[in-house]
Amino acid sequence: MARTKKVKESLTIMTEMVMPNDTNTLGNLMGGNLMRMMDVVGAICAQKHSNRIVVTASVDNVSFVESIPLGHVVTLEAKITRAFNSSMEVVVQVYAENIPAGTKVSTNKAFLTFVAVDQSGRPIEVPEALPETPEEEDLFASALRRRQLRLVLAGRMKPEEATELKAIFGI
Amino acid sequence: MARTKKVKESLTIMTEMVMPNDTNTLGNLMGGNLMRMMDVVGAICAQKHSNRIVVTASVDNVSFVESIPLGHVVTLEAKITRAFNSSMEVVVQVYAENIPAGTKVSTNKAFLTFVAVDQSGRPIEVPEALPETPEEEDLFASALRRRQLRLVLAGRMKPEEATELKAIFGI
Amino acid sequence: MARTKKVKESLTIMTEMVMPNDTNTLGNLMGGNLMRMMDVVGAICAQKHSNRIVVTASVDNVSFVESIPLGHVVTLEAKITRAFNSSMEVVVQVYAENIPAGTKVSTNKAFLTFVAVDQSGRPIEVPEALPETPEEEDLFASALRRRQLRLVLAGRMKPEEATELKAIFGI
Amino acid sequence: MARTKKVKESLTIMTEMVMPNDTNTLGNLMGGNLMRMMDVVGAICAQKHSNRIVVTASVDNVSFVESIPLGHVVTLEAKITRAFNSSMEVVVQVYAENIPAGTKVSTNKAFLTFVAVDQSGRPIEVPEALPETPEEEDLFASALRRRQLRLVLAGRMKPEEATELKAIFGI
Amino acid sequence: MARTKKVKESLTIMTEMVMPNDTNTLGNLMGGNLMRMMDVVGAICAQKHSNRIVVTASVDNVSFVESIPLGHVVTLEAKITRAFNSSMEVVVQVYAENIPAGTKVSTNKAFLTFVAVDQSGRPIEVPEALPETPEEEDLFASALRRRQLRLVLAGRMKPEEATELKAIFGI
Amino acid sequence: MARTKKVKESLTIMTEMVMPNDTNTLGNLMGGNLMRMMDVVGAICAQKHSNRIVVTASVDNVSFVESIPLGHVVTLEAKITRAFNSSMEVVVQVYAENIPAGTKVSTNKAFLTFVAVDQSGRPIEVPEALPETPEEEDLFASALRRRQLRLVLAGRMKPEEATELKAIFGI
Repeated sequence: MARTKKVKESLTIMTEMVMPNDTNTLGNLMGGNLMRMMDVVGAICAQKHSNRIVVTASVDNVSFVESIPLGHVVTLEAKITRAFNSSMEVVVQVYAENIPAGTKVSTNKAFLTFVAVDQSGRPIEVPEALPETPEEEDLFASALRRRQLRLVLAGRMKPEEATELKAIFGI
Repeated sequence: MARTKKVKESLTIMTEMVMPNDTNTLGNLMGGNLMRMMDVVGAICAQKHSNRIVVTASVDNVSFVESIPLGHVVTLEAKITRAFNSSMEVVVQVYAENIPAGTKVSTNKAFLTFVAVDQSGRPIEVPEALPETPEEEDLFASALRRRQLRLVLAGRMKPEEATELKAIFGI
Repeated sequence: MARTKKVKESLTIMTEMVMPNDTNTLGNLMGGNLMRMMDVVGAICAQKHSNRIVVTASVDNVSFVESIPLGHVVTLEAKITRAFNSSMEVVVQVYAENIPAGTKVSTNKAFLTFVAVDQSGRPIEVPEALPETPEEEDLFASALRRRQLRLVLAGRMKPEEATELKAIFGI
Repeated sequence: MARTKKVKESLTIMTEMVMPNDTNTLGNLMGGNLMRMMDVVGAICAQKHSNRIVVTASVDNVSFVESIPLGHVVTLEAKITRAFNSSMEVVVQVYAENIPAGTKVSTNKAFLTFVAVDQSGRPIEVPEALPETPEEEDLFASALRRRQLRLVLAGRMKPEEATELKAIFGI
Repeated sequence: MARTKKVKESLTIMTEMVMPNDTNTLGNLMGGNLMRMMDVVGAICAQKHSNRIVVTASVDNVSFVESIPLGHVVTLEAKITRAFNSSMEVVVQVYAENIPAGTKVSTNKAFLTFVAVDQSGRPIEVPEALPETPEEEDLFASALRRRQLRLVLAGRMKPEEATELKAIFGI
Repeated sequence: MARTKKVKESLTIMTEMVMPNDTNTLGNLMGGNLMRMMDVVGAICAQKHSNRIVVTASVDNVSFVESIPLGHVVTLEAKITRAFNSSMEVVVQVYAENIPAGTKVSTNKAFLTFVAVDQSGRPIEVPEALPETPEEEDLFASALRRRQLRLVLAGRMKPEEATELKAIFGI
């Protein structure tokens, strides 16, 4: 990896209003539509970090705890956590605002990975991500065990070799 | 749980053609759009099983290994694996076909959970899912450890209590 | 026509939920949106039968008797009935489900024809369709008179030559 | 029927540009998208004639002979032909323009029927349509046999009672 | 400029129904969606006048005084006012109809300019616009001062040189 | 006006990727689609400032000088400049990035006004906007003459009374 780039250089913010066609029968944002937004904002962040075209490689477990009603404002913040050769892990934080009520809650947090590719779709190396704040450093450190979990779940790493996973499962 | 329902009763098949607006700069289906389709087909399957309105509770780790170009046909098959009180785990299998070339490949497999709710959005009990084939029985059995992994990742279960997870990590 | 293909080999099922933007002022699925879905599912079926790109050649008379409200699930089943050189007739059956009420009704049946074309848009021969069930055989047989009606309505056949049409009009 | 309204009073013109997402793999407007446009322009015309909410009752056989490429301009003209109690037949003529080439061709003609309804969806009487030009008078006269064909095809009229159909089939 | 073309030759009419996804929280057409429609109808009009591909160069001040609710019918009429070398000014008039109530009001009037370009995007000369009615002649005459206001606002003309602007500001 | 709110408190950033359906025949973002994005981001900013539902009142002259091709990233920054009773002027700055090329250019700047309304659509007073930086103070000061220009163009103020306009036209 020839060079490094600061995490904050590729921070990407997306703001959307929940429109009628985004909602389910109860009038709330459908989970699949939120995932679509997460994918777009994450891909733009990874593009900015790598200055390349990127493709989505994976999305980690996402929980939907809060419902986000029609007319609410959704803010998505995407930040690179760590780069591995041609792949980048991005964390997307989602906030929902009920503006007339003056409330804003954190609704979701997801980790997505993207791969930088050239015009023929072949993977290509990306700069290392340089964390600066304590939060960025934590995300950088924990990226390793999330990566191992992904590899184990995909059957591409044996659980006994996933030494970093111990930090999650305390074993 | 008052009654049971066979897995095959709520099998749901969705077929889509990759349209221009679904694609990225390389002309392939964007990951976020595929996740949106998975969410819709999974929700319909969970609705059929529960005869209720449902909301998305979570999506497990999804990998995107194969790219699906413009004009290809995407088939999504959603099947309930197991019900837990008001929540249902659904597995969505995705196949992509290049029809002129006569090829069809399995591209993704994802587990989503949905919660059945009444008109005010309160969780409501659903029928038990009855597996019949060996594959359905495997998915029924393994649903427990996927559920524990979800709870551990969400910080709602201690790893040491997740006894079924051992089956994944061989510990 | 070099070979035949069974009807069931190209059966195509599409499942959709009625979304807000699909509905009219009364909150029901607009006829034009249902026709759009019929065209997509029919085209995929004809692509599967012919292993070719296809273009829509015609849509027969469609009636809209049942209204399909917001949130209902629409299932479309497309099946080839018969092939004629480069053209294929496909029947699309539409069902609408009110899942919380546990009702499912047949709402529409339409016959569409598609033409298989090469990359420059020139018609190209397709396999013959082989019916296997009595229902498939009926649809195969009656395809001839529907074709004559189409040709008469398009001014490309004289009514007196449309011998099969007698079966419709009892003359 | 309390009053009459001239055909020209509800003439409705819609102009659209073929956008990327409206096209198939060959870059031409998909048939289903054109049908969706026909339904919208026809419904607006029927609303104007009846001053009521309307629902689509049927679409007659539509042929797609000309392909309409991306970027071309589509003009749809909808005109009422005749009213029958609460239902209205509308003819939609479609023209496609290749503006840089300076060509404009007539590509499709379709007959749709709409029913005027009140807020609870119950049919409600509409004004009679008053034709003024020879073309409008022809369309008014021939509406009767198109109606009979529709009723015969829907199994709601016996072919031997469809006396006007003779004009089509010369019998 | 080699030739002239009458204003009425490129008159373009677009009719749309306000759909759920076009509306804001109050159930009215969002301003941005109306501007999108204005841009499309204006571009088609400029294409027809020039027989060229066109790109939007500017949109003058637009006011939104009347709200247009869901289900209302919007009619947009675009007419060229005057051509300047490769650019064309188009006026778009917007009307909204509440069909069941039988009311139709003029809601907006906007002036947009488009530039005709060749396939590489280079500006290319267009025919002169020939006004015929008094209203068309007024719009032709006043186009000059609207153009000066645009140039002054864009910082491309000094206010003291904008002699025609005096007609607006009475100075 | 009961209270003031700092300009930076309602800063709103929207990031979008140019998708196929947003583009014209040359493969560039259509002006009308950009205006739609400007309206949404401006409305969210005005909602945040006022903690109210808002409706678009006007959009000032917008120029489109730079074309923004498919796949480029568009960033829109919306900032309130000044409040007048129930109305708010918002400035939207648009930047386009060609990420693989590493270039980012400012493409457009537009002033939009929004009115805060209650649930029945009646105007309602909003907090005063408090500028803090020199740039914000300039925008606050110049808001007065842009407002006079809007009123003169809408025929609601006589040009000779628009004293602030002199600053624009140097008279």
